[in-house]
Amino acid sequence: MHSGSNDAIFDQYRSLIYKAIDSGDFTAIETLFNHNLSTVDLAHLLESTPSKTRILLWSFISEDNQGDVLTHLNDDIQQALLGKMSAEEIVETIQNIESDDLADMLQHISPDVSDRVLQLLPIQERAQVEGLLAYPEDTAGGLMNTDLIMVRADVNVETVLRYLRKLSLPESLDRVWVTDRNLNYQGSLAITQLLTNRPDELVSNIMSSDIKGIDAYADEEEVAQVFERHDLVSAPVINAEGILIGRITIDDVVDVIRENADHNMLSMAGLDEEGDIFAPVVKSSRERAVWLGINMATAFIAAAVMSRFETSIAQIVALAVLSPVVASMGGIAGSQTLTLIIRGMATGHITRGNLRWMLLRELGVGLLNGGLWALVIGAITVGWYHSVSLALVIAAAILVNICLAVLSGTLLPFVLKSANIDPALSGSVILTTLTDVFGFLTFLGLATAFLL
Amino acid sequence: MHSGSNDAIFDQYRSLIYKAIDSGDFTAIETLFNHNLSTVDLAHLLESTPSKTRILLWSFISEDNQGDVLTHLNDDIQQALLGKMSAEEIVETIQNIESDDLADMLQHISPDVSDRVLQLLPIQERAQVEGLLAYPEDTAGGLMNTDLIMVRADVNVETVLRYLRKLSLPESLDRVWVTDRNLNYQGSLAITQLLTNRPDELVSNIMSSDIKGIDAYADEEEVAQVFERHDLVSAPVINAEGILIGRITIDDVVDVIRENADHNMLSMAGLDEEGDIFAPVVKSSRERAVWLGINMATAFIAAAVMSRFETSIAQIVALAVLSPVVASMGGIAGSQTLTLIIRGMATGHITRGNLRWMLLRELGVGLLNGGLWALVIGAITVGWYHSVSLALVIAAAILVNICLAVLSGTLLPFVLKSANIDPALSGSVILTTLTDVFGFLTFLGLATAFLL
Repeated sequence: MHSGSNDAIFDQYRSLIYKAIDSGDFTAIETLFNHNLSTVDLAHLLESTPSKTRILLWSFISEDNQGDVLTHLNDDIQQALLGKMSAEEIVETIQNIESDDLADMLQHISPDVSDRVLQLLPIQERAQVEGLLAYPEDTAGGLMNTDLIMVRADVNVETVLRYLRKLSLPESLDRVWVTDRNLNYQGSLAITQLLTNRPDELVSNIMSSDIKGIDAYADEEEVAQVFERHDLVSAPVINAEGILIGRITIDDVVDVIRENADHNMLSMAGLDEEGDIFAPVVKSSRERAVWLGINMATAFIAAAVMSRFETSIAQIVALAVLSPVVASMGGIAGSQTLTLIIRGMATGHITRGNLRWMLLRELGVGLLNGGLWALVIGAITVGWYHSVSLALVIAAAILVNICLAVLSGTLLPFVLKSANIDPALSGSVILTTLTDVFGFLTFLGLATAFLL
Repeated sequence: MHSGSNDAIFDQYRSLIYKAIDSGDFTAIETLFNHNLSTVDLAHLLESTPSKTRILLWSFISEDNQGDVLTHLNDDIQQALLGKMSAEEIVETIQNIESDDLADMLQHISPDVSDRVLQLLPIQERAQVEGLLAYPEDTAGGLMNTDLIMVRADVNVETVLRYLRKLSLPESLDRVWVTDRNLNYQGSLAITQLLTNRPDELVSNIMSSDIKGIDAYADEEEVAQVFERHDLVSAPVINAEGILIGRITIDDVVDVIRENADHNMLSMAGLDEEGDIFAPVVKSSRERAVWLGINMATAFIAAAVMSRFETSIAQIVALAVLSPVVASMGGIAGSQTLTLIIRGMATGHITRGNLRWMLLRELGVGLLNGGLWALVIGAITVGWYHSVSLALVIAAAILVNICLAVLSGTLLPFVLKSANIDPALSGSVILTTLTDVFGFLTFLGLATAFLL
């Protein structure tokens, strides 16, 4: 959770801003924007402002700061703001942006404008950005920065230091890269090594080859796992020939982790992680309508199954009342399994290699929990409807449905992944459809067979 | 997603291990463990192994490596392994572990054993660990490490370099801390500044005071946000008096981000993020049974509401078939809103200050989407049951239920947070109960009033 105190400060800023807008006296906003708030804070404030007010607020941000604020905004909002600017205005705004951020931005605006922006850039920067645009956004190449400090293994510490003093070093620089004459990646040299070793020590003696070069086409989640497993601050990116072409820093990796976590959470509700929570009503409604439509279709599939048993229901109305209970117990048991498997696959703990063990384990869990809740729900049913046969039917249906649910929850992510479908996005809706259908079929089917 | 190739390698290791266990010839495991795998890999392998096999595999890890492997294991598994060791064995194992990792570990074992471990530690380390144990695990104090490199503002670069050469510096060190005579935090000095400035330059001229000291009791999520907003690699922790007491590094922050993201995802299915996915069947069943029980209770609440209308259902069986559709549309619409609000609160974008705007926006979305799907579902109902009045009733119920759902989804997280209940854990079950009850009440209520 965000700190309460921080929230309170932003609430104060917001009420100040709304007051200023209402009164038409914008000096308070100007003062606030130019003196009190960092570019990170300004981006946060824009992200938490309704879209109409946002455009007004954007105009109060000084041109020097606009580029930096842009890099901190989420894609949707960035896109919306850039969409209102000409290529010339964009070039003006993005002057101080690093090449990797710029490449990301250009991927989100219309190709015409982004071509024009590229043409207006200084030739060297243009080449850099075009190089980065060659890699998909969600790969190591899309994450990397091309400002590299490279040294050779056969020079000494003093030479490296002399070279570094000529450059303007980023504060967070933790290591420089060692390459051969042809820029083949060989290893890295920690900055701390430069402090503690003698000036005549050779780089080859103090460099480390522990950090392997990351392939430019490696998936960003794979990059994140390399950083996490080896506690890295920066890592080298190489092309297919082993040539060093860029470096990735931990701050970009943190963004990847956060975004993918958000993606997993939001996509389970059919939402887009780059979406703007303060988008206008119509835009939000449209985005969410698709998911509602998909779920409506699945609800009607379940309803169609149930309608096959209308004659049974007409005779024993209790079946209508108890059917949703059977379906929902399966849904919960299945979604627990599904969530565990999706996460286990993401962390690499669950693979095809231990799928069989996992299936048996989940079936065990299904039998135990299915048995337990079959007894409980059977008992409740006897108490409520005073019918032992109805209780036996619902107990059997609960047991069967929970077992089918955990088996589906285990297998479904593997099936979806083989079909290249994101299990986090579509897994839960497919699973719920299955558990609803199984639930209605087993309960109403058994009831029709044994109670009528 | 974890890289396919990496998964494949681990699958090979696993089949090698299972073969070795089956044949009773453990030399292959010993070779693998002592030569091919890093401690990070060993931890990963243990985490993806059923609990029985895990204890066998643990015994093949050399004593020198066991401590390091332990730090990379998740809490549940760490605890299980430590639980089988005496205090003396634990002390033997943890010799090379950093004090912050050790403090975390001791918080998870029985107080008797952890007291005994503390007594067996060298006096200085014991004091350090006890100092860390004073802070809750999920605060800045619980995350920090106490190995600090501190310099004074009135010395020059040469003095600092001379001092640093005497220490063994961690490779990832990006900055040292500047304090006054009383250890009050004053600012930080980037290592790169030491490389590029003249030996006689004073620290006071090149230090930065941009990074503010983090309060030792600050929540870990707040710490993560500070790191993300300012792209930090390390940050100072201060006590109430402003005295520098520790530093937090980005690798620990990455763990916090990952764990909290997992928590959000898993708790929505009533699961524990530190849980062991390879726990035995009985343990897993017990953990998940609670959530199934809670959901059973809510399903019966909804069933009780439905049973009030049994006479209506007996007359029009279509009501039984269509009721779940009405309930589920509300459930989906509500959970979309709930997910957005929970995430917006976590990122600080949504606060009480813009709750009113948010409510109006969501009501707008509810009216639009409710209206749209009321029309669609109404039309389907006419086609299916050839009854315009039934279609009108279900359309009205859909519209009302979706609007109530989005309003509940917006307000619920605020209500739960005020009551100090984690909205990610209990929000969705409460919301689904509400939307089921609203759905049955509006649909069956309207049907009873107008169709009978």
